[in-house]
Amino acid sequence: MPLFDMPLEQLRAYRPQRDEPADFDAFWDGTLAQAREAAGAPLFTRVDSGLSLVTVDDVEFAGGDGDPVRAWLVLPKGDIAGCVVSYLGYSHGRGLPHQHLTWAAAGWANLVMDSRGQGASARAAVGATGDPHGTDHAQSSGMMTKGISSPDTYYYRRLFTDAVLAVDVAAAHDRIDPARIVVAGGSQGGAIAQAVAGLRNDLLAAFIDVPFLSHFSRALDLASTGPYPELVEYLAGQRLDADRVMRTLSYFDGMHFAARATTTARYSVALRDTTCPPSTVFAAYNHWGGEAEIDVWPWNEHEGGMAFQTEIQLDLLRRL
Amino acid sequence: MPLFDMPLEQLRAYRPQRDEPADFDAFWDGTLAQAREAAGAPLFTRVDSGLSLVTVDDVEFAGGDGDPVRAWLVLPKGDIAGCVVSYLGYSHGRGLPHQHLTWAAAGWANLVMDSRGQGASARAAVGATGDPHGTDHAQSSGMMTKGISSPDTYYYRRLFTDAVLAVDVAAAHDRIDPARIVVAGGSQGGAIAQAVAGLRNDLLAAFIDVPFLSHFSRALDLASTGPYPELVEYLAGQRLDADRVMRTLSYFDGMHFAARATTTARYSVALRDTTCPPSTVFAAYNHWGGEAEIDVWPWNEHEGGMAFQTEIQLDLLRRL
Amino acid sequence: MPLFDMPLEQLRAYRPQRDEPADFDAFWDGTLAQAREAAGAPLFTRVDSGLSLVTVDDVEFAGGDGDPVRAWLVLPKGDIAGCVVSYLGYSHGRGLPHQHLTWAAAGWANLVMDSRGQGASARAAVGATGDPHGTDHAQSSGMMTKGISSPDTYYYRRLFTDAVLAVDVAAAHDRIDPARIVVAGGSQGGAIAQAVAGLRNDLLAAFIDVPFLSHFSRALDLASTGPYPELVEYLAGQRLDADRVMRTLSYFDGMHFAARATTTARYSVALRDTTCPPSTVFAAYNHWGGEAEIDVWPWNEHEGGMAFQTEIQLDLLRRL
Amino acid sequence: MPLFDMPLEQLRAYRPQRDEPADFDAFWDGTLAQAREAAGAPLFTRVDSGLSLVTVDDVEFAGGDGDPVRAWLVLPKGDIAGCVVSYLGYSHGRGLPHQHLTWAAAGWANLVMDSRGQGASARAAVGATGDPHGTDHAQSSGMMTKGISSPDTYYYRRLFTDAVLAVDVAAAHDRIDPARIVVAGGSQGGAIAQAVAGLRNDLLAAFIDVPFLSHFSRALDLASTGPYPELVEYLAGQRLDADRVMRTLSYFDGMHFAARATTTARYSVALRDTTCPPSTVFAAYNHWGGEAEIDVWPWNEHEGGMAFQTEIQLDLLRRL
Amino acid sequence: MPLFDMPLEQLRAYRPQRDEPADFDAFWDGTLAQAREAAGAPLFTRVDSGLSLVTVDDVEFAGGDGDPVRAWLVLPKGDIAGCVVSYLGYSHGRGLPHQHLTWAAAGWANLVMDSRGQGASARAAVGATGDPHGTDHAQSSGMMTKGISSPDTYYYRRLFTDAVLAVDVAAAHDRIDPARIVVAGGSQGGAIAQAVAGLRNDLLAAFIDVPFLSHFSRALDLASTGPYPELVEYLAGQRLDADRVMRTLSYFDGMHFAARATTTARYSVALRDTTCPPSTVFAAYNHWGGEAEIDVWPWNEHEGGMAFQTEIQLDLLRRL
Amino acid sequence: MPLFDMPLEQLRAYRPQRDEPADFDAFWDGTLAQAREAAGAPLFTRVDSGLSLVTVDDVEFAGGDGDPVRAWLVLPKGDIAGCVVSYLGYSHGRGLPHQHLTWAAAGWANLVMDSRGQGASARAAVGATGDPHGTDHAQSSGMMTKGISSPDTYYYRRLFTDAVLAVDVAAAHDRIDPARIVVAGGSQGGAIAQAVAGLRNDLLAAFIDVPFLSHFSRALDLASTGPYPELVEYLAGQRLDADRVMRTLSYFDGMHFAARATTTARYSVALRDTTCPPSTVFAAYNHWGGEAEIDVWPWNEHEGGMAFQTEIQLDLLRRL
Repeated sequence: MPLFDMPLEQLRAYRPQRDEPADFDAFWDGTLAQAREAAGAPLFTRVDSGLSLVTVDDVEFAGGDGDPVRAWLVLPKGDIAGCVVSYLGYSHGRGLPHQHLTWAAAGWANLVMDSRGQGASARAAVGATGDPHGTDHAQSSGMMTKGISSPDTYYYRRLFTDAVLAVDVAAAHDRIDPARIVVAGGSQGGAIAQAVAGLRNDLLAAFIDVPFLSHFSRALDLASTGPYPELVEYLAGQRLDADRVMRTLSYFDGMHFAARATTTARYSVALRDTTCPPSTVFAAYNHWGGEAEIDVWPWNEHEGGMAFQTEIQLDLLRRL
Repeated sequence: MPLFDMPLEQLRAYRPQRDEPADFDAFWDGTLAQAREAAGAPLFTRVDSGLSLVTVDDVEFAGGDGDPVRAWLVLPKGDIAGCVVSYLGYSHGRGLPHQHLTWAAAGWANLVMDSRGQGASARAAVGATGDPHGTDHAQSSGMMTKGISSPDTYYYRRLFTDAVLAVDVAAAHDRIDPARIVVAGGSQGGAIAQAVAGLRNDLLAAFIDVPFLSHFSRALDLASTGPYPELVEYLAGQRLDADRVMRTLSYFDGMHFAARATTTARYSVALRDTTCPPSTVFAAYNHWGGEAEIDVWPWNEHEGGMAFQTEIQLDLLRRL
Repeated sequence: MPLFDMPLEQLRAYRPQRDEPADFDAFWDGTLAQAREAAGAPLFTRVDSGLSLVTVDDVEFAGGDGDPVRAWLVLPKGDIAGCVVSYLGYSHGRGLPHQHLTWAAAGWANLVMDSRGQGASARAAVGATGDPHGTDHAQSSGMMTKGISSPDTYYYRRLFTDAVLAVDVAAAHDRIDPARIVVAGGSQGGAIAQAVAGLRNDLLAAFIDVPFLSHFSRALDLASTGPYPELVEYLAGQRLDADRVMRTLSYFDGMHFAARATTTARYSVALRDTTCPPSTVFAAYNHWGGEAEIDVWPWNEHEGGMAFQTEIQLDLLRRL
Repeated sequence: MPLFDMPLEQLRAYRPQRDEPADFDAFWDGTLAQAREAAGAPLFTRVDSGLSLVTVDDVEFAGGDGDPVRAWLVLPKGDIAGCVVSYLGYSHGRGLPHQHLTWAAAGWANLVMDSRGQGASARAAVGATGDPHGTDHAQSSGMMTKGISSPDTYYYRRLFTDAVLAVDVAAAHDRIDPARIVVAGGSQGGAIAQAVAGLRNDLLAAFIDVPFLSHFSRALDLASTGPYPELVEYLAGQRLDADRVMRTLSYFDGMHFAARATTTARYSVALRDTTCPPSTVFAAYNHWGGEAEIDVWPWNEHEGGMAFQTEIQLDLLRRL
Repeated sequence: MPLFDMPLEQLRAYRPQRDEPADFDAFWDGTLAQAREAAGAPLFTRVDSGLSLVTVDDVEFAGGDGDPVRAWLVLPKGDIAGCVVSYLGYSHGRGLPHQHLTWAAAGWANLVMDSRGQGASARAAVGATGDPHGTDHAQSSGMMTKGISSPDTYYYRRLFTDAVLAVDVAAAHDRIDPARIVVAGGSQGGAIAQAVAGLRNDLLAAFIDVPFLSHFSRALDLASTGPYPELVEYLAGQRLDADRVMRTLSYFDGMHFAARATTTARYSVALRDTTCPPSTVFAAYNHWGGEAEIDVWPWNEHEGGMAFQTEIQLDLLRRL
Repeated sequence: MPLFDMPLEQLRAYRPQRDEPADFDAFWDGTLAQAREAAGAPLFTRVDSGLSLVTVDDVEFAGGDGDPVRAWLVLPKGDIAGCVVSYLGYSHGRGLPHQHLTWAAAGWANLVMDSRGQGASARAAVGATGDPHGTDHAQSSGMMTKGISSPDTYYYRRLFTDAVLAVDVAAAHDRIDPARIVVAGGSQGGAIAQAVAGLRNDLLAAFIDVPFLSHFSRALDLASTGPYPELVEYLAGQRLDADRVMRTLSYFDGMHFAARATTTARYSVALRDTTCPPSTVFAAYNHWGGEAEIDVWPWNEHEGGMAFQTEIQLDLLRRL
């Protein structure tokens, strides 16, 4: 893949105007308050995973709208340094427990939140959580347009809420120090971590890799792979709905969450990434409200740094 | 596309054993009874379509589970010979009124039922109906796996019910003779027409083109394009769910509906159709309970006869 | 498809210099005069289409060089508001009569001109007209390079002439008011309508959707799909022929026809259209000699507005 | 490419029934007689090719229907062992003289016949000959369906006639021994050489590589690449024309020419050839009327033996 | 992907004749003896991986021809149940240590052998080992044809030898019980594990997933994806080398190793696997010399069971 | 392919800063000296090619590091005007003798150097020369990354050295005038010719078509096809190696060789060439140290002028 976005120097300075809805905070405060009200106690079921260095719980907790959300909680034997709450890429599910051993092997608990409704066909990582909400409008394939007729019904309202409440679950766990929670994820998982960091101020750090769902207005004109084109497909069919769709998306733009964040972030970006174009990543990064650094992978596409980025994160964890 | 299925002579004789659930009829009787109980009166809203030879109503009627379903009712000015209730192909929506003029121009009313949840991104024919049901499990993209964990929650239970009740709507219309209703559709639309013909015995005829959703066990091993592979994708991820999925599908196999049909059918099939392989079409056709003829298009893929098939149907309509 | 051409604001102002041959008008005057001289009376054969709201004639009239050209004439029963003469997209044929009911259902006659030599393999709309002219040079597949060694032998000289004479046929029909003729088409059909509007001054309106064959010099450098690349393919083989080819094309550039037009036009353009890039459409639109408006579809590719555009046109027809 | 046709042992024995039209010989006798009557003397124009070991003439001779056909005649300096008349693959043209040095370097004259109408966009070998015949029906892209409504107007009637008369031109040349003429070609070129060998009995040998245009009834069901699918495309559009098309093709099937051949042939075939499937090649080879051997390339697709096959042919030439 | 190989019942019985070289055992005995003679002591370098539950060593040991081969040795803290020696899929490298935590988390040591020369561009798992051998012949891309002119120089002679000696390294490690070594791998890794199990009789078990390099004669005719086609590509170029290549491959066919194996095996196979077609897997499995079971994944392609297969293996490990 | 690089006017002026290693000349002087020291006498073996106008020798000479390199020497019968030493495109081999007749037919000797290690799978032109050097690091497929950890071990050090010594072989041949040697090639062959022209000052001319391996820093950001992406693939995996790789490449950048050239060059470039983007060709051309002209093919991709370019070169040869 050739380069296709701005040169790196321009990217480093790219900080587009944000245009957020007046009631952005009210929308999210109300959403979270309502969800927390509906939330009962999470259910932890010990899983016989065949692994001896960790214990694994199959967690079911109440997320957005009080719906049941599944997660794995992997706890290392011995001391626990804190908890990484991790979120998944688009169309992936939480898979099986033995697929989540990295943070535990580093001495951290790891709560892996499933993405509701996703991961059914992910051969490498199946999902286990339904999304018990239908729509009042036709939906394109995938989750990008589910409930998009209003911010109140949009799929990502529920998913981001799940993610904020997943941190509540981690923070309330008796083996986890609530002051030592890190949120982490790549692509959609990065978008979620970014949103959580904008919606709560008690995090130790955020690891945000090649984040999705940022700077929609540019992303829809530039992305040629991945899920952004699902939105373009939808608008290409529902030709008269662009204003309504854009209004809905304005409540979910990563730039607005980044601007509210107060924790320390480690971003990564790939310069040949046609799924989450680098300018859309820098747009959020350059608005980040707390401290932030970014790793730039000049030769990579959406995969970014992968295991190399994880090594950087393992090193950071040790120093937190 | 080269030939890939059986030679035509074998196809003509292909009538595989059917293996249907014992409570197939009970399942559908209960489903339809419950839906009809929930159904209120349909809503007809006259549309200013800019067309002078027909009138168009935007119809909203109660379908499966009592959910609102949209349709167009196109009525020719002058005498009305009967009503064609038509169903749509996978991922298509009802589009706009002026896209449905053929049957009306032949003097027949035409009720075009939208497919709930579908057609969002169909550039040629957008959908307008939501599917207000979520799932208790992760879903692959598209509708093929929505609610597939049980026949009670499977998407096609609702869609087929919508279709049966759409005929109720037509039959109750004061301009339409309830004894002169024809169901028609291609691909998914053909599967729906086939199902409706198996679930009611008051139809004048059924036009079933390159029908989908028939003889699943073979279709999943043979189809290389179109929506059958969505099921394979799902099973490739949810590796342990095949029995449950196959049980669900057994309530929706077109062969079982065809075997119950009593009306006259005109089928069509295309010999190079990798989306609805010809043997799966003949499997249903050869089980048809009423009279039936089939048009064979030897050079075509899933498009089948298209306008040529419509000409055959226009000719049949004249003679009904 | 990401955006790839100029931003919309630049497009709206884009009006490149035209560089037309000195004898452009003489060429076309001569061409039309010669064809009209060769033209005998058109032949109308009533078709038994199975449709009761319209009558259909299979028309054969003399087009370019006096060659026989086929068309459908669809007449609504009752009053006739005028006539839409419609032209087809590249590689499509006139198909079957029941595929042309929209304008008739709105009370307008519709003359659908077949594109000579095209549509043989169009599964959705077969062609029925030959092009009885061979070439003195090797031709690339498709019609783009047929006879391209000279403007006199180029395929589009004959096709545009057919189109001008099709309006003569409509205007001479006893059920049609010659002062109420609209030309319409998309893609190649838009290019033809545009050319006809530049070659006659008696039209009521022109509907020109995503027109092809405009601003060749830019189109050949920008288009990545559709038929423009046939020209690039030809020049990539016939490496020494570019000057001759460019000279031929200069007699067929839509900008020159647009500049001569006097009627009212409704254009449409799609911003992600890689077949007829938006700048090539605006180049013609911004040179239009009469009144003109343009509908911009920001999310669409070459399909443009499709049924939505037709709705706009139905509304315009009512107000003409 | 995996194997897809019969196993080699079956191929070696595959000799399907031939079903030829009763007037096959009359058709071709008449065609050739008429063409020879129309033929004037060929025109030889010496070309300054920059090559010192050979002379090159640009030849124009009268082919089918008396139309002008171009060819290169490459003559080695010194003694001339005979003449190879070579024919080209589909969509290729004769290119430039220095592309035809192999046979000349072996001491043979080489007459390279251009394929009328083809090669316009062939970047490696441009064509220079027009086909001055139009059609009375729409034509799919390429030459496969040009004039296919009747054997009299079909493109290959003219092309095969060109090829027979090209041998006349060679035989009449004062530097060439008319008893020492070899016809040669691959793919379409092989089909032409095969046809010429069936239409004249004065050849020294025929080199027929991976021949096209043989055993149509099977080829249309099996070929997935190359030009056979152009016919399938045509029939998929012109759904009602199959009988007429099949009748036309019956006058051009390579099996019928092979059965009439009397000269010695060297065939080649590739077992993974999806353009000219091996069973269609063996079908012709096994009907060959004279002596024949075949080289089997088990790992190759349509390219077959390429330079290795040429080496075999160079060796044969030495021994002729 | 549709089914393309034999039905499952035939696969279960498919046990083709083996045709092995007379000196197969001599070849491998000599090869291993020579390599072991050249082998010095392995080098273990502790890596600061940021992981607290395991220790990681970067291992360099002498493999085939005494060349240096890299590996990771991951040791769980606490008791060690045994050692899994794992091998990698084609074109993958050993990656980074934190990518190999599954077996360690289950209490087993894990020696992950790098595949010499491979993994350079594997974004998810980079390689770190060179192959310091050149070739005396042109090589196609990838490793499949490196040194293929003779069994003595073929790449897989060195790689399989590396793999046998990797077990020596594990067996000699002071924390590992040499009687409790399991070999494991998928695809190429499965082929390697299979070969090692045929070349030593001291293993506790073998986990062989969708193995590559088995039953070449059928694989080359059937595989349409993955590395088998590299061999077909080579033979399509080097048209005269098939006998030599086939002779070389006969020393590396998985069926011959399987027939010599004495340990217990757990195989897996996927029925839609076009890279390692199921019949080639069953061919080896059905020749296995020891006890063996096989997991069949009916809906999957080359990915097979993935994490689900790992769960089965974790369960087996616990019971070993 | 649309245009994607700079407009032609900018290309003509594009002469980017060169940034070459200080010891560039020392590196190459040492390399060549060492190779020449290792070189013994070349071996000429007369081949029975079946060609009577030329003689062909199979040549084996000592190239880089003294390794054996194969070539064809084709000599025309009669006077010899000089010698063209020609080099091959990436992944091609020298093929068979009868594939190299153009220069001989023009009266020039032609030494066709095989590219070591390449051409194994080239169906049209197989290679016959091994590269007897392994690597100390994993290598991506193809030759682009072989030995790239250092300029001393990089594959192109050996290949360029082969090429310089091939001219030594030609110059020492008793039928060839050492003052009349032309180097020639396209793509990789053009890069080699360019390098040879920078490394020796005794050439008569250089024909450099669409040259590869020039201006790496831009090429890696722009090329979307061909072998440059192999480097990007490598760097996308070996994420931390970019500096080392860039240092190695700096010894092989065509701009540096061009700047040292003293002979007359004829370049060609294609404006739609995504394999060797036009700006990278002009970058070298505009640095050429001697006289130079360039042919621009505006409609072509990487194939450039092909036979048309050869005609230009035949004409130049006559005038040399």
